[in-house]
Amino acid sequence: MAIATRLIDYRDNARGFEGMLAWDDTIEGPRPGVLVAHTIRGRSGFEEDKAGRLAQMGYAGFAIDVYGKDEIGGEFDDCRRMMEGLRDDRETLQRRLLLAVETLRGQPEVDASRVAAIGYCFGGLCALDIARSGDALAGVVSFHGLFDAPGNTACNRIRARILALHGWDDPLATPEQAVALGAELTAMGADWQLHCYGNVRHAFTNPAADPSTGVTVYNADADRRSWAAAKYFLSELFDT
Amino acid sequence: MAIATRLIDYRDNARGFEGMLAWDDTIEGPRPGVLVAHTIRGRSGFEEDKAGRLAQMGYAGFAIDVYGKDEIGGEFDDCRRMMEGLRDDRETLQRRLLLAVETLRGQPEVDASRVAAIGYCFGGLCALDIARSGDALAGVVSFHGLFDAPGNTACNRIRARILALHGWDDPLATPEQAVALGAELTAMGADWQLHCYGNVRHAFTNPAADPSTGVTVYNADADRRSWAAAKYFLSELFDT
Repeated sequence: MAIATRLIDYRDNARGFEGMLAWDDTIEGPRPGVLVAHTIRGRSGFEEDKAGRLAQMGYAGFAIDVYGKDEIGGEFDDCRRMMEGLRDDRETLQRRLLLAVETLRGQPEVDASRVAAIGYCFGGLCALDIARSGDALAGVVSFHGLFDAPGNTACNRIRARILALHGWDDPLATPEQAVALGAELTAMGADWQLHCYGNVRHAFTNPAADPSTGVTVYNADADRRSWAAAKYFLSELFDT
Repeated sequence: MAIATRLIDYRDNARGFEGMLAWDDTIEGPRPGVLVAHTIRGRSGFEEDKAGRLAQMGYAGFAIDVYGKDEIGGEFDDCRRMMEGLRDDRETLQRRLLLAVETLRGQPEVDASRVAAIGYCFGGLCALDIARSGDALAGVVSFHGLFDAPGNTACNRIRARILALHGWDDPLATPEQAVALGAELTAMGADWQLHCYGNVRHAFTNPAADPSTGVTVYNADADRRSWAAAKYFLSELFDT
Protein backbone atom coordinates (compact mmCIF):
# COMPACT_ATOMS: atom_id res chain seq x y z
CA MET A 1 0.00 0.00 0.00
CA ALA A 2 1.24 3.47 -0.85
CA ILE A 3 -1.19 6.29 -0.06
CA ALA A 4 -0.72 9.21 -2.42
CA THR A 5 -2.48 12.57 -2.19
CA ARG A 6 -2.92 15.63 -4.35
CA LEU A 7 -4.74 18.92 -4.04
CA ILE A 8 -7.41 19.62 -6.64
CA ASP A 9 -8.79 23.03 -7.53
CA TYR A 10 -12.32 23.52 -8.79
CA ARG A 11 -14.43 26.62 -9.37
CA ASP A 12 -18.00 27.81 -9.01
CA ASN A 13 -18.25 31.07 -10.93
CA ALA A 14 -15.87 33.49 -9.25
CA ARG A 15 -15.09 31.32 -6.23
CA GLY A 16 -12.26 28.80 -6.17
CA PHE A 17 -12.28 25.66 -4.00
CA GLU A 18 -9.58 23.20 -3.06
CA GLY A 19 -10.07 19.53 -2.19
CA MET A 20 -7.57 16.83 -1.30
CA LEU A 21 -7.69 13.44 -3.04
CA ALA A 22 -6.12 10.40 -1.36
CA TRP A 23 -5.70 6.99 -3.01
CA ASP A 24 -3.61 3.85 -2.84
CA ASP A 25 -1.13 4.20 -5.66
CA THR A 26 -0.46 0.45 -5.76
CA ILE A 27 -4.03 -0.16 -7.01
CA GLU A 28 -4.29 0.06 -10.78
CA GLY A 29 -7.25 1.46 -12.64
CA PRO A 30 -10.27 3.39 -11.42
CA ARG A 31 -11.84 2.55 -8.05
CA PRO A 32 -14.89 3.78 -6.12
CA GLY A 33 -14.64 7.38 -4.94
CA VAL A 34 -15.86 8.66 -1.58
CA LEU A 35 -16.28 12.37 -1.00
CA VAL A 36 -15.74 13.66 2.57
CA ALA A 37 -17.70 16.79 3.52
CA HIS A 38 -16.26 18.94 6.28
CA THR A 39 -17.52 20.16 9.63
CA ILE A 40 -18.24 23.77 10.48
CA ARG A 41 -14.47 24.33 10.63
CA GLY A 42 -13.95 23.84 6.89
CA ARG A 43 -11.58 21.33 5.29
CA SER A 44 -8.95 20.32 7.84
CA GLY A 45 -6.69 17.51 8.93
CA PHE A 46 -9.76 15.78 10.38
CA GLU A 47 -11.36 15.25 6.95
CA GLU A 48 -8.03 14.63 5.23
CA ASP A 49 -7.39 11.83 7.72
CA LYS A 50 -10.76 10.29 6.81
CA ALA A 51 -9.86 10.52 3.11
CA GLY A 52 -6.61 8.70 3.90
CA ARG A 53 -8.46 5.96 5.78
CA LEU A 54 -10.81 5.54 2.82
CA ALA A 55 -7.76 5.25 0.57
CA GLN A 56 -6.42 2.49 2.80
CA MET A 57 -9.73 0.68 2.30
CA GLY A 58 -9.19 0.75 -1.48
CA TYR A 59 -11.34 3.77 -2.29
CA ALA A 60 -10.31 7.20 -3.50
CA GLY A 61 -11.11 9.60 -0.65
CA PHE A 62 -11.77 13.23 -1.50
CA ALA A 63 -11.82 15.80 1.31
CA ILE A 64 -13.80 18.63 -0.25
CA ASP A 65 -14.20 22.32 0.47
CA VAL A 66 -17.48 24.22 0.29
CA TYR A 67 -16.32 27.53 1.78
CA GLY A 68 -13.61 28.52 -0.72
CA LYS A 69 -9.86 27.94 -1.01
CA ASP A 70 -9.01 31.30 0.57
CA GLU A 71 -11.07 30.45 3.67
CA ILE A 72 -9.33 27.16 4.57
CA GLY A 73 -7.87 27.32 8.06
CA GLY A 74 -9.91 30.40 8.97
CA GLU A 75 -11.06 31.52 12.40
CA PHE A 76 -14.01 29.77 14.03
CA ASP A 77 -16.30 32.79 13.89
CA ASP A 78 -15.66 33.21 10.18
CA CYS A 79 -16.35 29.51 9.61
CA ARG A 80 -19.56 29.73 11.58
CA ARG A 81 -20.69 32.70 9.53
CA MET A 82 -20.01 30.81 6.28
CA MET A 83 -21.75 27.70 7.57
CA GLU A 84 -24.81 29.69 8.60
CA GLY A 85 -24.85 31.45 5.24
CA LEU A 86 -24.91 28.12 3.40
CA ARG A 87 -27.53 26.67 5.76
CA ASP A 88 -29.68 29.64 4.81
CA ASP A 89 -28.91 29.27 1.09
CA ARG A 90 -29.16 25.57 0.42
CA GLU A 91 -29.28 26.03 -3.35
CA THR A 92 -25.80 27.51 -3.32
CA LEU A 93 -24.61 24.81 -0.93
CA GLN A 94 -26.06 22.08 -3.15
CA ARG A 95 -24.49 23.60 -6.26
CA ARG A 96 -21.06 23.58 -4.61
CA LEU A 97 -21.56 20.02 -3.38
CA LEU A 98 -22.58 18.71 -6.78
CA LEU A 99 -19.60 20.49 -8.28
CA ALA A 100 -17.38 18.61 -5.84
CA VAL A 101 -19.10 15.33 -6.77
CA GLU A 102 -18.46 16.02 -10.47
CA THR A 103 -14.85 16.94 -9.70
CA LEU A 104 -14.40 13.61 -7.92
CA ARG A 105 -16.03 11.75 -10.82
CA GLY A 106 -13.60 13.40 -13.20
CA GLN A 107 -10.41 12.11 -11.56
CA PRO A 108 -8.56 9.35 -13.44
CA GLU A 109 -8.26 7.24 -10.25
CA VAL A 110 -12.05 7.21 -9.81
CA ASP A 111 -14.75 5.03 -11.36
CA ALA A 112 -17.31 7.77 -12.09
CA SER A 113 -20.17 5.27 -11.84
CA ARG A 114 -19.23 4.29 -8.28
CA VAL A 115 -19.23 7.34 -6.03
CA ALA A 116 -20.45 7.93 -2.48
CA ALA A 117 -20.26 10.76 0.05
CA ILE A 118 -19.74 10.93 3.79
CA GLY A 119 -19.74 13.95 6.05
CA TYR A 120 -19.41 15.12 9.63
CA CYS A 121 -21.61 17.59 11.56
CA PHE A 122 -22.38 20.30 8.96
CA GLY A 123 -20.82 17.87 6.49
CA GLY A 124 -23.45 15.31 7.45
CA LEU A 125 -26.08 17.80 6.31
CA CYS A 126 -24.01 18.22 3.12
CA ALA A 127 -23.98 14.45 2.51
CA LEU A 128 -27.75 14.33 3.01
CA ASP A 129 -28.21 17.32 0.70
CA ILE A 130 -26.32 15.55 -2.08
CA ALA A 131 -28.77 12.66 -1.73
CA ARG A 132 -31.73 15.05 -1.54
CA SER A 133 -30.61 16.69 -4.78
CA GLY A 134 -31.46 13.44 -6.56
CA ASP A 135 -27.91 12.81 -7.80
CA ALA A 136 -27.42 9.16 -8.77
CA LEU A 137 -24.43 8.55 -6.51
CA ALA A 138 -24.46 5.18 -4.79
CA GLY A 139 -24.92 6.32 -1.20
CA VAL A 140 -24.24 8.85 1.51
CA VAL A 141 -23.30 8.59 5.18
CA SER A 142 -24.00 11.33 7.72
CA PHE A 143 -21.97 11.26 10.95
CA HIS A 144 -23.66 13.38 13.65
CA GLY A 145 -25.16 15.46 10.87
CA LEU A 146 -27.74 18.21 11.07
CA PHE A 147 -31.14 17.05 9.87
CA ASP A 148 -33.04 20.19 8.84
CA ALA A 149 -34.66 19.79 5.44
CA PRO A 150 -33.45 22.21 2.77
CA GLY A 151 -36.89 23.32 1.57
CA ASN A 152 -36.07 23.03 -2.13
CA THR A 153 -35.88 19.25 -2.63
CA ALA A 154 -39.17 17.79 -1.39
CA CYS A 155 -40.28 16.87 -4.92
CA ASN A 156 -37.05 15.05 -5.77
CA ARG A 157 -36.65 11.30 -5.80
CA ILE A 158 -33.65 10.17 -3.73
CA ARG A 159 -31.58 7.59 -5.59
CA ALA A 160 -28.63 7.30 -3.19
CA ARG A 161 -28.86 4.91 -0.27
CA ILE A 162 -28.64 6.77 3.04
CA LEU A 163 -27.05 5.91 6.38
CA ALA A 164 -27.35 8.47 9.18
CA LEU A 165 -25.25 7.82 12.31
CA HIS A 166 -26.72 9.81 15.13
CA GLY A 167 -26.17 10.59 18.81
CA TRP A 168 -29.61 10.43 20.41
CA ASP A 169 -28.72 13.22 22.87
CA ASP A 170 -27.35 15.52 20.16
CA PRO A 171 -28.70 18.97 21.06
CA LEU A 172 -28.34 20.01 17.39
CA ALA A 173 -30.49 17.14 16.07
CA THR A 174 -33.28 16.22 18.44
CA PRO A 175 -35.38 13.03 18.49
CA GLU A 176 -38.21 15.06 16.93
CA GLN A 177 -35.89 16.08 14.09
CA ALA A 178 -34.80 12.46 13.68
CA VAL A 179 -38.44 11.43 13.32
CA ALA A 180 -38.99 14.25 10.81
CA LEU A 181 -35.94 13.12 8.82
CA GLY A 182 -37.38 9.62 8.60
CA ALA A 183 -40.66 10.97 7.27
CA GLU A 184 -38.86 13.23 4.77
CA LEU A 185 -36.62 10.46 3.42
CA THR A 186 -39.50 7.98 3.19
CA ALA A 187 -41.58 10.52 1.27
CA MET A 188 -38.67 10.98 -1.14
CA GLY A 189 -38.46 7.24 -1.80
CA ALA A 190 -35.08 6.65 -0.18
CA ASP A 191 -33.52 3.40 1.03
CA TRP A 192 -32.51 4.85 4.39
CA GLN A 193 -31.09 3.75 7.72
CA LEU A 194 -30.72 5.71 10.93
CA HIS A 195 -28.45 4.32 13.65
CA CYS A 196 -29.10 5.99 16.99
CA TYR A 197 -26.60 5.85 19.85
CA GLY A 198 -27.97 6.36 23.36
CA ASN A 199 -26.27 8.84 25.72
CA VAL A 200 -24.27 10.26 22.82
CA ARG A 201 -24.04 13.92 21.84
CA HIS A 202 -22.85 15.96 18.88
CA ALA A 203 -19.42 15.49 17.26
CA PHE A 204 -19.00 12.04 18.83
CA THR A 205 -16.30 11.03 16.31
CA ASN A 206 -14.02 13.95 17.14
CA PRO A 207 -11.50 13.34 19.96
CA ALA A 208 -10.79 17.08 19.99
CA ALA A 209 -14.42 18.03 20.66
CA ASP A 210 -14.76 20.48 23.56
CA PRO A 211 -17.21 18.91 26.04
CA SER A 212 -17.42 21.96 28.31
CA THR A 213 -20.78 23.17 27.00
CA GLY A 214 -22.30 19.67 26.79
CA VAL A 215 -22.99 20.03 23.06
CA THR A 216 -19.97 18.34 21.47
CA VAL A 217 -18.64 15.26 23.29
CA TYR A 218 -16.31 12.60 21.92
CA ASN A 219 -17.54 9.04 22.47
CA ALA A 220 -15.11 6.23 21.70
CA ASP A 221 -17.80 3.53 21.48
CA ALA A 222 -19.96 5.52 19.07
CA ASP A 223 -16.89 6.51 17.07
CA ARG A 224 -15.87 2.87 16.62
CA ARG A 225 -19.41 1.61 15.99
CA SER A 226 -20.23 4.31 13.49
CA TRP A 227 -17.06 3.72 11.50
CA ALA A 228 -17.78 -0.01 11.42
CA ALA A 229 -21.32 0.72 10.18
CA ALA A 230 -19.98 3.05 7.49
CA LYS A 231 -17.43 0.45 6.35
CA TYR A 232 -20.16 -2.18 6.04
CA PHE A 233 -22.39 0.30 4.20
CA LEU A 234 -19.66 1.18 1.69
CA SER A 235 -18.81 -2.48 1.14
CA GLU A 236 -22.50 -3.12 0.43
CA LEU A 237 -22.65 -0.17 -1.99
CA PHE A 238 -19.56 -1.17 -3.92
CA ASP A 239 -19.57 -4.94 -3.38
CA THR A 240 -16.07 -4.66 -1.89
CA MET B 1 -16.99 -27.65 12.26
CA ALA B 2 -19.56 -30.11 13.59
CA ILE B 3 -22.76 -28.54 14.87
CA ALA B 4 -24.33 -30.62 17.62
CA THR B 5 -27.69 -30.01 19.27
CA ARG B 6 -29.58 -31.28 22.29
CA LEU B 7 -32.91 -30.55 23.88
CA ILE B 8 -32.85 -29.21 27.43
CA ASP B 9 -35.75 -29.32 29.90
CA TYR B 10 -36.19 -26.72 32.59
CA ARG B 11 -39.05 -26.00 34.98
CA ASP B 12 -40.80 -23.03 36.58
CA ASN B 13 -42.98 -24.43 39.39
CA ALA B 14 -45.47 -26.77 37.73
CA ARG B 15 -44.66 -25.82 34.14
CA GLY B 16 -42.01 -27.56 32.08
CA PHE B 17 -40.12 -25.86 29.23
CA GLU B 18 -37.90 -27.21 26.48
CA GLY B 19 -35.06 -25.37 24.75
CA MET B 20 -32.63 -26.46 22.08
CA LEU B 21 -28.90 -25.90 22.48
CA ALA B 22 -26.63 -25.82 19.40
CA TRP B 23 -22.83 -25.68 19.51
CA ASP B 24 -19.78 -26.54 17.45
CA ASP B 25 -18.54 -29.79 18.88
CA THR B 26 -15.03 -29.27 17.48
CA ILE B 27 -14.50 -26.30 19.84
CA GLU B 28 -13.14 -27.37 23.22
CA GLY B 29 -14.07 -25.75 26.49
CA PRO B 30 -16.76 -23.24 27.37
CA ARG B 31 -17.66 -20.50 24.92
CA PRO B 32 -20.05 -17.51 24.96
CA GLY B 33 -23.72 -18.45 25.04
CA VAL B 34 -26.47 -16.65 23.13
CA LEU B 35 -30.10 -17.22 24.03
CA VAL B 36 -32.67 -16.93 21.21
CA ALA B 37 -36.17 -15.82 22.26
CA HIS B 38 -39.03 -16.86 20.02
CA THR B 39 -41.73 -15.02 18.11
CA ILE B 40 -45.43 -15.20 18.90
CA ARG B 41 -45.40 -18.70 17.37
CA GLY B 42 -43.32 -20.23 20.14
CA ARG B 43 -40.06 -22.11 19.68
CA SER B 44 -39.82 -23.33 16.08
CA GLY B 45 -37.41 -24.11 13.29
CA PHE B 46 -36.95 -20.37 12.79
CA GLU B 47 -35.28 -19.90 16.19
CA GLU B 48 -33.50 -23.25 16.03
CA ASP B 49 -31.94 -22.15 12.75
CA LYS B 50 -30.68 -18.97 14.43
CA ALA B 51 -29.21 -21.04 17.25
CA GLY B 52 -27.41 -23.14 14.63
CA ARG B 53 -26.06 -20.03 12.91
CA LEU B 54 -24.78 -18.78 16.27
CA ALA B 55 -23.10 -22.15 16.80
CA GLN B 56 -21.37 -21.76 13.42
CA MET B 57 -20.04 -18.42 14.67
CA GLY B 58 -18.42 -20.14 17.64
CA TYR B 59 -21.11 -19.44 20.22
CA ALA B 60 -23.51 -21.79 21.93
CA GLY B 61 -26.99 -20.89 20.67
CA PHE B 62 -29.98 -21.69 22.85
CA ALA B 63 -33.46 -21.51 21.33
CA ILE B 64 -35.63 -21.12 24.41
CA ASP B 65 -39.30 -21.65 25.18
CA VAL B 66 -41.43 -19.36 27.33
CA TYR B 67 -44.84 -20.93 26.65
CA GLY B 68 -44.25 -24.47 27.95
CA LYS B 69 -43.05 -27.74 26.42
CA ASP B 70 -46.58 -29.00 25.84
CA GLU B 71 -47.44 -25.90 23.81
CA ILE B 72 -44.61 -26.14 21.25
CA GLY B 73 -46.02 -26.36 17.73
CA GLY B 74 -49.45 -25.18 18.82
CA GLU B 75 -52.09 -23.39 16.79
CA PHE B 76 -51.65 -19.68 16.06
CA ASP B 77 -54.65 -18.59 18.13
CA ASP B 78 -53.35 -20.51 21.14
CA CYS B 79 -49.92 -18.95 20.70
CA ARG B 80 -51.43 -15.48 20.48
CA ARG B 81 -53.39 -16.09 23.66
CA MET B 82 -50.24 -17.16 25.49
CA MET B 83 -48.26 -14.24 24.12
CA GLU B 84 -50.93 -11.77 25.20
CA GLY B 85 -51.09 -13.37 28.62
CA LEU B 86 -47.36 -12.89 29.10
CA ARG B 87 -47.45 -9.34 27.75
CA ASP B 88 -50.04 -8.63 30.43
CA ASP B 89 -48.01 -10.43 33.12
CA ARG B 90 -44.46 -9.30 32.60
CA GLU B 91 -43.30 -10.58 35.99
CA THR B 92 -44.11 -14.11 34.97
CA LEU B 93 -42.51 -13.56 31.57
CA GLN B 94 -39.35 -12.16 33.17
CA ARG B 95 -39.16 -15.05 35.63
CA ARG B 96 -39.32 -17.56 32.78
CA LEU B 97 -36.74 -15.63 30.79
CA LEU B 98 -34.27 -15.42 33.67
CA LEU B 99 -34.79 -19.12 34.26
CA ALA B 100 -33.81 -19.72 30.64
CA VAL B 101 -30.74 -17.49 31.08
CA GLU B 102 -29.70 -19.49 34.16
CA THR B 103 -30.29 -22.73 32.29
CA LEU B 104 -28.00 -21.54 29.50
CA ARG B 105 -25.36 -20.46 32.02
CA GLY B 106 -25.47 -23.94 33.56
CA GLN B 107 -24.53 -25.84 30.39
CA PRO B 108 -20.98 -27.25 30.30
CA GLU B 109 -20.39 -25.85 26.78
CA VAL B 110 -21.12 -22.30 28.01
CA ASP B 111 -18.93 -19.74 29.75
CA ALA B 112 -21.45 -18.53 32.34
CA SER B 113 -19.76 -15.12 32.52
CA ARG B 114 -20.25 -14.48 28.79
CA VAL B 115 -23.92 -14.69 27.89
CA ALA B 116 -26.14 -12.62 25.60
CA ALA B 117 -29.71 -12.82 24.30
CA ILE B 118 -31.36 -12.12 20.97
CA GLY B 119 -35.01 -12.31 20.05
CA TYR B 120 -37.51 -11.79 17.26
CA CYS B 121 -40.87 -9.94 17.39
CA PHE B 122 -42.31 -10.93 20.80
CA GLY B 123 -38.85 -12.40 21.44
CA GLY B 124 -37.37 -8.93 20.91
CA LEU B 125 -39.52 -7.74 23.77
CA CYS B 126 -38.24 -10.74 25.73
CA ALA B 127 -34.61 -9.82 25.00
CA LEU B 128 -35.27 -6.25 26.12
CA ASP B 129 -37.05 -7.51 29.26
CA ILE B 130 -34.00 -9.57 30.23
CA ALA B 131 -31.94 -6.39 30.03
CA ARG B 132 -34.60 -4.40 31.89
CA SER B 133 -34.53 -6.96 34.70
CA GLY B 134 -31.00 -5.80 35.50
CA ASP B 135 -29.38 -9.18 34.84
CA ALA B 136 -25.64 -8.83 34.26
CA LEU B 137 -25.60 -10.57 30.90
CA ALA B 138 -23.33 -8.96 28.33
CA GLY B 139 -25.91 -7.71 25.87
CA VAL B 140 -29.22 -8.20 24.10
CA VAL B 141 -30.40 -7.77 20.52
CA SER B 142 -34.02 -7.16 19.56
CA PHE B 143 -35.01 -7.90 15.96
CA HIS B 144 -38.31 -6.14 15.11
CA GLY B 145 -39.21 -6.35 18.78
CA LEU B 146 -42.15 -4.81 20.58
CA PHE B 147 -41.12 -1.81 22.65
CA ASP B 148 -43.78 -1.42 25.35
CA ALA B 149 -42.24 -0.95 28.79
CA PRO B 150 -43.10 -3.65 31.33
CA GLY B 151 -44.11 -1.33 34.14
CA ASN B 152 -42.15 -3.17 36.84
CA THR B 153 -38.54 -2.34 35.93
CA ALA B 154 -38.25 1.46 35.79
CA CYS B 155 -36.11 1.58 38.94
CA ASN B 156 -33.63 -1.04 37.70
CA ARG B 157 -30.20 -0.25 36.34
CA ILE B 158 -29.59 -1.91 32.96
CA ARG B 159 -26.19 -3.58 32.80
CA ALA B 160 -26.52 -5.35 29.44
CA ARG B 161 -25.65 -3.45 26.28
CA ILE B 162 -28.65 -3.14 23.99
CA LEU B 163 -29.07 -3.22 20.23
CA ALA B 164 -32.58 -2.80 18.81
CA LEU B 165 -33.01 -3.46 15.07
CA HIS B 166 -36.21 -1.83 13.96
CA GLY B 167 -38.35 -1.35 10.87
CA TRP B 168 -39.41 2.29 10.90
CA ASP B 169 -42.81 1.45 9.37
CA ASP B 170 -43.51 -1.37 11.83
CA PRO B 171 -47.19 -0.93 12.79
CA LEU B 172 -46.52 -2.76 16.08
CA ALA B 173 -43.71 -0.40 17.16
CA THR B 174 -44.33 3.16 16.02
CA PRO B 175 -41.81 6.04 15.82
CA GLU B 176 -43.38 7.44 19.00
CA GLN B 177 -42.75 4.12 20.76
CA ALA B 178 -39.17 4.11 19.47
CA VAL B 179 -38.66 7.57 20.97
CA ALA B 180 -40.20 6.39 24.24
CA LEU B 181 -37.90 3.35 24.27
CA GLY B 182 -34.88 5.63 23.91
CA ALA B 183 -36.02 7.71 26.87
CA GLU B 184 -36.71 4.60 28.95
CA LEU B 185 -33.33 3.00 28.25
CA THR B 186 -31.45 6.24 28.86
CA ALA B 187 -33.22 6.71 32.18
CA MET B 188 -32.18 3.17 33.14
CA GLY B 189 -28.53 3.91 32.38
CA ALA B 190 -28.17 1.60 29.40
CA ASP B 191 -25.54 1.60 26.67
CA TRP B 192 -28.09 1.35 23.86
CA GLN B 193 -28.32 1.51 20.09
CA LEU B 194 -31.37 1.63 17.86
CA HIS B 195 -30.92 0.91 14.15
CA CYS B 196 -33.92 2.07 12.14
CA TYR B 197 -34.62 0.82 8.62
CA GLY B 198 -36.76 3.03 6.39
CA ASN B 199 -39.73 1.54 4.51
CA VAL B 200 -39.47 -1.64 6.56
CA ARG B 201 -42.29 -3.28 8.49
CA HIS B 202 -42.69 -5.94 11.17
CA ALA B 203 -41.06 -9.39 10.95
CA PHE B 204 -38.58 -8.21 8.32
CA THR B 205 -36.21 -11.14 8.97
CA ASN B 206 -38.82 -13.79 8.26
CA PRO B 207 -39.09 -14.92 4.61
CA ALA B 208 -42.34 -16.71 5.51
CA ALA B 209 -44.02 -13.51 6.78
CA ASP B 210 -47.49 -13.02 5.28
CA PRO B 211 -47.49 -9.54 3.70
CA SER B 212 -51.21 -9.55 2.87
CA THR B 213 -52.25 -7.33 5.78
CA GLY B 214 -49.26 -4.98 5.47
CA VAL B 215 -48.11 -5.69 9.02
CA THR B 216 -45.47 -8.39 8.55
CA VAL B 217 -43.29 -8.05 5.44
CA TYR B 218 -39.98 -9.77 4.74
CA ASN B 219 -37.22 -7.39 3.64
CA ALA B 220 -34.02 -8.97 2.35
CA ASP B 221 -31.91 -5.81 2.78
CA ALA B 222 -33.00 -5.26 6.37
CA ASP B 223 -32.57 -8.97 7.09
CA ARG B 224 -28.97 -8.93 5.85
CA ARG B 225 -28.12 -5.58 7.46
CA SER B 226 -29.60 -6.48 10.83
CA TRP B 227 -27.76 -9.79 10.96
CA ALA B 228 -24.49 -8.03 10.12
CA ALA B 229 -25.16 -5.50 12.88
CA ALA B 230 -25.91 -8.28 15.37
CA LYS B 231 -22.72 -10.13 14.41
CA TYR B 232 -20.64 -7.00 14.96
CA PHE B 233 -22.41 -6.35 18.27
CA LEU B 234 -21.75 -9.90 19.51
CA SER B 235 -18.11 -9.71 18.43
CA GLU B 236 -17.79 -6.46 20.37
CA LEU B 237 -19.43 -8.01 23.45
CA PHE B 238 -17.25 -11.11 23.44
CA ASP B 239 -14.10 -9.77 21.76
CA THR B 240 -14.45 -12.50 19.12
